[in-house]
Amino acid sequence: MIKYTIAVVGATGAVGTKMIEMIESSTLPIREIKVLASKRSAGKKITVNGLELVVEETTPESFDGVDIALFSAGGSISQQFAPEAVKRGAIVIDNTSAYRMDPTVPLVVPEVNPEALKGHNGIIANPNCSTIQMMVALEPIRKKYGLSRIIVSTYQAVSGAGIAAVKEMKDQAQQMLNNEAYEATILPSGGDKKHYPISFNILPQIDLFSQEGYTFEEWKMINETKKIMSDSEIKVSATCVRVPVVSGHSESVYIEVKDESASVSGIKEALQSAPGIELQDDPSIQLYPTPLTAEGKKETFVGRIRQDIDVKNGYHMWVVSDNLIKGAALNSVQIAEKLHGMGLIKK
Amino acid sequence: MIKYTIAVVGATGAVGTKMIEMIESSTLPIREIKVLASKRSAGKKITVNGLELVVEETTPESFDGVDIALFSAGGSISQQFAPEAVKRGAIVIDNTSAYRMDPTVPLVVPEVNPEALKGHNGIIANPNCSTIQMMVALEPIRKKYGLSRIIVSTYQAVSGAGIAAVKEMKDQAQQMLNNEAYEATILPSGGDKKHYPISFNILPQIDLFSQEGYTFEEWKMINETKKIMSDSEIKVSATCVRVPVVSGHSESVYIEVKDESASVSGIKEALQSAPGIELQDDPSIQLYPTPLTAEGKKETFVGRIRQDIDVKNGYHMWVVSDNLIKGAALNSVQIAEKLHGMGLIKK
Repeated sequence: MIKYTIAVVGATGAVGTKMIEMIESSTLPIREIKVLASKRSAGKKITVNGLELVVEETTPESFDGVDIALFSAGGSISQQFAPEAVKRGAIVIDNTSAYRMDPTVPLVVPEVNPEALKGHNGIIANPNCSTIQMMVALEPIRKKYGLSRIIVSTYQAVSGAGIAAVKEMKDQAQQMLNNEAYEATILPSGGDKKHYPISFNILPQIDLFSQEGYTFEEWKMINETKKIMSDSEIKVSATCVRVPVVSGHSESVYIEVKDESASVSGIKEALQSAPGIELQDDPSIQLYPTPLTAEGKKETFVGRIRQDIDVKNGYHMWVVSDNLIKGAALNSVQIAEKLHGMGLIKK
Repeated sequence: MIKYTIAVVGATGAVGTKMIEMIESSTLPIREIKVLASKRSAGKKITVNGLELVVEETTPESFDGVDIALFSAGGSISQQFAPEAVKRGAIVIDNTSAYRMDPTVPLVVPEVNPEALKGHNGIIANPNCSTIQMMVALEPIRKKYGLSRIIVSTYQAVSGAGIAAVKEMKDQAQQMLNNEAYEATILPSGGDKKHYPISFNILPQIDLFSQEGYTFEEWKMINETKKIMSDSEIKVSATCVRVPVVSGHSESVYIEVKDESASVSGIKEALQSAPGIELQDDPSIQLYPTPLTAEGKKETFVGRIRQDIDVKNGYHMWVVSDNLIKGAALNSVQIAEKLHGMGLIKK
């Protein structure tokens, strides 16, 4: 029977540790999990489900004998080592933005476009966290009614910026509660010049600023949506905002559908039977998704679905999912499961 | 010289205490400030700028000799006492939702529609906090280019729900940081059945649910915008969301303007010269509004102005203002100043 050796690159990070958890609980037949990170982390021990794993330094040779390599250690590490892993026969599933817009690389949300996996050349890209959950929520609506427009405003959790950012948020919270001085050294973006506190605050910047006054995070949502949905005509605009939440991205999503016969009840029906979605939508019992209730869960939660007041084919909704799980680690492992199911992993 | 006796009803609340501060620093000629609250608070002392004021119980007779009465003690108190105040010759400026949609009551943001004050019958309504800052930011754009559509997603601070809600948020934060059990007894709405934690969380419900799946807070933004802008045709839709911030509402606002010659630079020019606005918009130095930097300030801050990717006359922006100041206390006092300036206060 086929059994896979899976490497996790960036195994000590917020996403990497979740990846190991998700591999452990997946349906994939596993021979071995190799946990790779920087030289600095080499020798560290990680315990997953009682299994103790020792972190190794990532080198080209680390990928000898590896079947599937999950990368989540930053774009430059992916660019350095993903081709080395492919050269050694591994399939790379990359959770950085390095290869997402490469036209030769499939960008995949398994519930939406698994067929894109067929054309892969060794590297599969995992979309941005905020894009994935929006795609899961919108695909059943697109299938049923068509989709012409998306306007999204996000409420993104701090764990998306890594473990150190979460620690800094909690430190700031404690210092603010004590009326003490506080420091900001990470957010909005580790790579940017200025840093602002996130605790008891809101920052309308995620990643660096890019063209037309949009941030890279906003461009990711725009461009990745068009690629995943194979629709260059769909109108997409995004405002990406960081909020003081540990895990769980929330999104206020406005859509316009093509089919004028659409309705709130029709949208709810489509979502109810769709994979990966849990509908939480009942104002009469105050049922709607929140990040605290979504944390640690695999589903994408959708609620507050309502028709626009003025535009017949316009709808608003509220979409929440754990950014470390479906937004990153789980989606990567589901891509591996899909590749396995479709017989696309060479052995 | 004319000097006014001003009563503040709800003087011990989050907005009431700010009202006293704003009266103290206003240009109004003041004879006396009367601080009124419930029987429970009567006898309490409030110190404003070194001046000690003793809280009195609100009764119909409290308004004898009062020229201007600012109400912020909940809708039922306004309904009970505002007519009594008017009967005794006072002008009422009401910061609750009790009279806002009454067609005989002006609903006023002084930067936008001061002329509406002329027809008053004794009661002027102060709009909802999240509506006011949006009106201040959009009016200069509407004047220059016309406005056909607004879609807003809010990030609203906890002080909008009162002092007790802020205390509960801070208690929850401390308990969560200590990994202790925490309680939720106030938010999303004191009058609703279920309560959820707001600390390290996001709640897509403000006020109770109403028609069509929208909350009352969302309907306030929709209906008040149409009334303040005297435009029943303008398309407005809102998603109102509570975030763990003490003071300072943020808004992700999408607009469509009528004039196709509009531009980002033209919008910035219009805002730069408009009253009550500070433009904070320079991605090259990461300049944009945040609640922490807006807290305690009188201005409405606008940034992240950019054209929609696909819709030529569509623009996105980020609007922040202190919900207790311009969103409530300051706007009420500015209405009083405007009434005084226009000679509309009987003496």
